[in-house]
Amino acid sequence: MAKNSNFYPVILAGGRGTRFWPLSRRKRAKQLLALDGKQTMIQQTVARLLPLAPAKRLWIITNEDLRPAILKQLPKLPRAQVLAEPVGRNTAPAIGLAAFLLLRENPEAVIGLFPSDHVIADEEQYRETLERGIEIAAAGANIVVLGIRPSRAETGYGYIEAGSAFREALRVRRFTEKPDAEKAAEFVAAGNYFWNSGMFLWSARTLAEALREHLPKTAPLLEEIAGAFGTRKFAATFRRLYPKCENISVDYAVLEPRSAKGEQAGNIFCLPADFGWNDLGSWAALHEHHNAKSNPPEGNLVAGSGVFLLNARGNYVYAPGKFVAAVGVSDLVVVETPDALLITTRQHAQDVGKVVKYLDEKKMDKLT
Amino acid sequence: MAKNSNFYPVILAGGRGTRFWPLSRRKRAKQLLALDGKQTMIQQTVARLLPLAPAKRLWIITNEDLRPAILKQLPKLPRAQVLAEPVGRNTAPAIGLAAFLLLRENPEAVIGLFPSDHVIADEEQYRETLERGIEIAAAGANIVVLGIRPSRAETGYGYIEAGSAFREALRVRRFTEKPDAEKAAEFVAAGNYFWNSGMFLWSARTLAEALREHLPKTAPLLEEIAGAFGTRKFAATFRRLYPKCENISVDYAVLEPRSAKGEQAGNIFCLPADFGWNDLGSWAALHEHHNAKSNPPEGNLVAGSGVFLLNARGNYVYAPGKFVAAVGVSDLVVVETPDALLITTRQHAQDVGKVVKYLDEKKMDKLT
Repeated sequence: MAKNSNFYPVILAGGRGTRFWPLSRRKRAKQLLALDGKQTMIQQTVARLLPLAPAKRLWIITNEDLRPAILKQLPKLPRAQVLAEPVGRNTAPAIGLAAFLLLRENPEAVIGLFPSDHVIADEEQYRETLERGIEIAAAGANIVVLGIRPSRAETGYGYIEAGSAFREALRVRRFTEKPDAEKAAEFVAAGNYFWNSGMFLWSARTLAEALREHLPKTAPLLEEIAGAFGTRKFAATFRRLYPKCENISVDYAVLEPRSAKGEQAGNIFCLPADFGWNDLGSWAALHEHHNAKSNPPEGNLVAGSGVFLLNARGNYVYAPGKFVAAVGVSDLVVVETPDALLITTRQHAQDVGKVVKYLDEKKMDKLT
Repeated sequence: MAKNSNFYPVILAGGRGTRFWPLSRRKRAKQLLALDGKQTMIQQTVARLLPLAPAKRLWIITNEDLRPAILKQLPKLPRAQVLAEPVGRNTAPAIGLAAFLLLRENPEAVIGLFPSDHVIADEEQYRETLERGIEIAAAGANIVVLGIRPSRAETGYGYIEAGSAFREALRVRRFTEKPDAEKAAEFVAAGNYFWNSGMFLWSARTLAEALREHLPKTAPLLEEIAGAFGTRKFAATFRRLYPKCENISVDYAVLEPRSAKGEQAGNIFCLPADFGWNDLGSWAALHEHHNAKSNPPEGNLVAGSGVFLLNARGNYVYAPGKFVAAVGVSDLVVVETPDALLITTRQHAQDVGKVVKYLDEKKMDKLT
């Protein structure tokens, strides 16, 4: 299959990933950490997209805290294409800005939106899936969302309800918010529900039109910012106008109202994805991911200068440079950095974000 | 009551205290740590004895690893009276050496033997008890052991079975090894059993005679070492003869055979002690001790630069200089040093010595 030369990956890398505190910080967010292998999450994200699009077609949208580290980790990317939002405005303005920028560069541009902090086990399969999605997105005013077949009744993700088949994809009937446990179980049992991966494909034209329709006040601001790109005025224009954009997710602003038009009229397609996706949403998810890969004795994963385990099971310990002794403990998560020590359980790993919330409230900025 | 000017405290400070790893090390054993307050355990031990005997009558027996740190922590003690055993030979030779040394100095000397790493809550009561014991020890060929009224069916201590009353004391019927749980419960219920505190009082003469009787090969060696004290030959004599001494505890060598002579003939007396004794035998015991003193919220004791607790109960965390976050964890013990991280539970804190055993076996000397 010939590569589509109109394909432009746009990587969203403005998140904080607070659930990986104390390792993740404002200036070293989750996507900048090497949680799985030697490369960082964002380096892996870029590396698996480069076979589909060269660096000159690759864009990253992040924030000012993270931009310097991203440029350092990805020195071969065109610096101007690593954009730092002056303020966070959720995904709709970020994605909209990309649409208007790329529409100017190439009216036939097909945009792929990618989170920067997910793991993909089968990269070949991933790229093949994307190529099928790019074809659908390039064929008209279509929106393609990659849907992950649910392997458990997860309550931490949004779900996509799929309807009738269309080529290799399924028409989207509805996007749902994060369900409760009962509903999640129903969704999984039903068979036509998929996890929303946050990976989308659509033409720049379709996206620009959707924004003009659904965010009529924000769209002209984004167009004006895009118009200044490449000029001396760009930074100032970006800083002046971006804060005026609506603070809203693309799901809420575009996908939900559009899917409400009906399965046929919405033209949103779910492309089922089977490439071993994992969003590594917490220390517990990371533990599970590594455990499945390396199957260590008694399920203990320990990063340290040495280790002694006695009656210890299912623990995740990160304490580089230290000798770690774990005696009579199970299912703990312990993470140590030069200034902080996190002690929790795999079960409570979802609550680690609350530590950061507390530190934010107390303005203990050195620790965030 | 007039202070007895024949009283010589001898502090045994050669233990390693491996259950306080990773804080305790070969050159920084438990007695050199400030586990309770600002002073270290050995500084506290000396401070509470000084009202009974001035520094010039105070002796410490330790080893070569610990002697430099002890001299540093106790600069006012006569350096020559801080003796370092060339090799460890358990308590009988150490105590015997003290007896022969003090017999030369003062034929009426009454020796008090004290561990260096225990906590005493009521120091006034402690000294009053000692004064009563000194009187009994000075009165003849008596051995006085301070017995702690058991507050629980502890299996980690030896017990003293007491018989008939003698002045404020009770004649000792029998010394027992560490009992199992069932026996410990019986002992506590019986009412005439006491914990062996390891604190003894006896005259130098009585002790010297006991050694000549029970350790006839070792006693002359110790006499020869004592004879060289104060001369240039002392260090060499000590190094040459001490390794030839029997490796045996004073309990095993002297107290048990002597008590076997019978309650009347043995002349061993148990002085019941009610001064709030705690041997701080483990991180869990330390947690309990501090908890009783300071009653912190939810029983969490955290040493760190800051702390955030969420659904956390009964934890002991030592991570000085670090911000500690504990989320959804109970009854853990976590101790962090620059080179090591211990993660265990209060229940398993007794097993921490096994970490050191492992490190010893692997010859990982930097960590011990």
